[in-house]
Amino acid sequence: MAKKHDGSRVRDALRVDGALPDPGATPVGPGKKAKALAGLESAGERLSALQEALYAEGVGGGTRRVLLVLQGMDTSGKGGTVSHVLGLVNPMGVRYAAFKKPTVAERRHEYLWRIRKQLPGPGQIGVFDRSHYEDILVPQVSGLLTAAERRRRYAEINAFEAELAEAGTTVLKVFLHISPEEQLKRLKARLVTPEKRWKYNPGDLEARSHWPAYQEAYAGIFEKTPTWYAVPADHKWYRNWAVAELLIETLADLKPRFPAPDYDVDAELAKLKGVGVPS
Amino acid sequence: MAKKHDGSRVRDALRVDGALPDPGATPVGPGKKAKALAGLESAGERLSALQEALYAEGVGGGTRRVLLVLQGMDTSGKGGTVSHVLGLVNPMGVRYAAFKKPTVAERRHEYLWRIRKQLPGPGQIGVFDRSHYEDILVPQVSGLLTAAERRRRYAEINAFEAELAEAGTTVLKVFLHISPEEQLKRLKARLVTPEKRWKYNPGDLEARSHWPAYQEAYAGIFEKTPTWYAVPADHKWYRNWAVAELLIETLADLKPRFPAPDYDVDAELAKLKGVGVPS
Repeated sequence: MAKKHDGSRVRDALRVDGALPDPGATPVGPGKKAKALAGLESAGERLSALQEALYAEGVGGGTRRVLLVLQGMDTSGKGGTVSHVLGLVNPMGVRYAAFKKPTVAERRHEYLWRIRKQLPGPGQIGVFDRSHYEDILVPQVSGLLTAAERRRRYAEINAFEAELAEAGTTVLKVFLHISPEEQLKRLKARLVTPEKRWKYNPGDLEARSHWPAYQEAYAGIFEKTPTWYAVPADHKWYRNWAVAELLIETLADLKPRFPAPDYDVDAELAKLKGVGVPS
Repeated sequence: MAKKHDGSRVRDALRVDGALPDPGATPVGPGKKAKALAGLESAGERLSALQEALYAEGVGGGTRRVLLVLQGMDTSGKGGTVSHVLGLVNPMGVRYAAFKKPTVAERRHEYLWRIRKQLPGPGQIGVFDRSHYEDILVPQVSGLLTAAERRRRYAEINAFEAELAEAGTTVLKVFLHISPEEQLKRLKARLVTPEKRWKYNPGDLEARSHWPAYQEAYAGIFEKTPTWYAVPADHKWYRNWAVAELLIETLADLKPRFPAPDYDVDAELAKLKGVGVPS
């Protein structure tokens, strides 16, 4: 899809358009850890304020919402992003869903069935830790998807996302871009640290062995489905900073507004004056 | 129900047993704001560590989970508690649900139907902002519940919570106890502050006019359903500190444990040594 410039500094820099940036690069924003951490802290305040306004809008009858889709190879930091970026805002306004290997029950439905059940409500920020894109990636890499089937899935997903947009959902799709060298380090860290062993899955090495096939499958997705952003993710501090800024730019675009009261403020204040203390 | 002492300092002090503490009191823990804020900060680390272990246990096949039920009059701080206490932990492990006035669709089902749909999954901390207890409170105060119906609801809810316990859910029920004087201040603040007006609802004054009836309805619930904790909530700093500690004591009791790996760590480490960088 053609690159669109909309004057948003971080989105313009990270929007996928052909080749991806180096996973260790810092194409926009802070190039050093200390600056990125300070930036994330200030981002927390802006993010919270925008999130609260969006939530209030939802309470006031608004239907807009945001869905952050996180994709990336194992250890690319999807969970860490949720913790460090979404952890900055009020949990009331966040709806998180992880999509693992489909269960037997889930496989009895079409692949968007379980996705639809986890969509954010009005005023919420939904977060998908993996998503319907796994339903292209995994079968494509396993050789279980013909080219015609793949084209059909692109079309189905595009129609699905258009339907979401129509219902007031802004979808922000982020690919956390990690290098195979960094993945190897992180897998090792998971094995040698007892409290991290639960995060390790022997299947991760199998997926890793298909690295080029996954990159190719992602390239197809970036080309055939609407706007993606690639966040260099070898530095966790850069990843967190960048996702927070992408989310802020997306929310700021919506200009969420506290709803006007649907009652007469002065009349209510007058009523309060006459109210005693119940006993 | 009889008061049980289990050696947990905060739970023992705040467990409901007859008369409630004064809404402005600080029956256990810090009596001053600065100390309470510092305490909450340290609670954040303990809470995060416990929550991560519970989550990991869930990933490892464990079925245990915690459900925090927040009840209280309007403005008692249910939302603020979610923001300040649950905001301390990873959003991946939190499932929040608010139960407002039932919709037309919800009213076509029995009252526990919508509750069951929002229960936390294994390893999660669920948070109910209001709950199935509203289905006793509201009809009782409105005079729409006969004594016999009320007894049946107590029994149904007790059976429901026993069922949850059997499935591995520890339910922590907290009543945020605010004074009518403090409520009046908070309602006024909502009206005079433009960014807070969306939180105000003219119906709040109607509920307020039934204050003694609500207190009576709560007293029945405290007597007839399992263990409740009352948190004095006139001071927000005390409320946040106390709920955080109640949650910590509840989680600590469970002794959540990182699951043992279901794979051979050494074998995996050896495999990693042999793994190259895919190209």
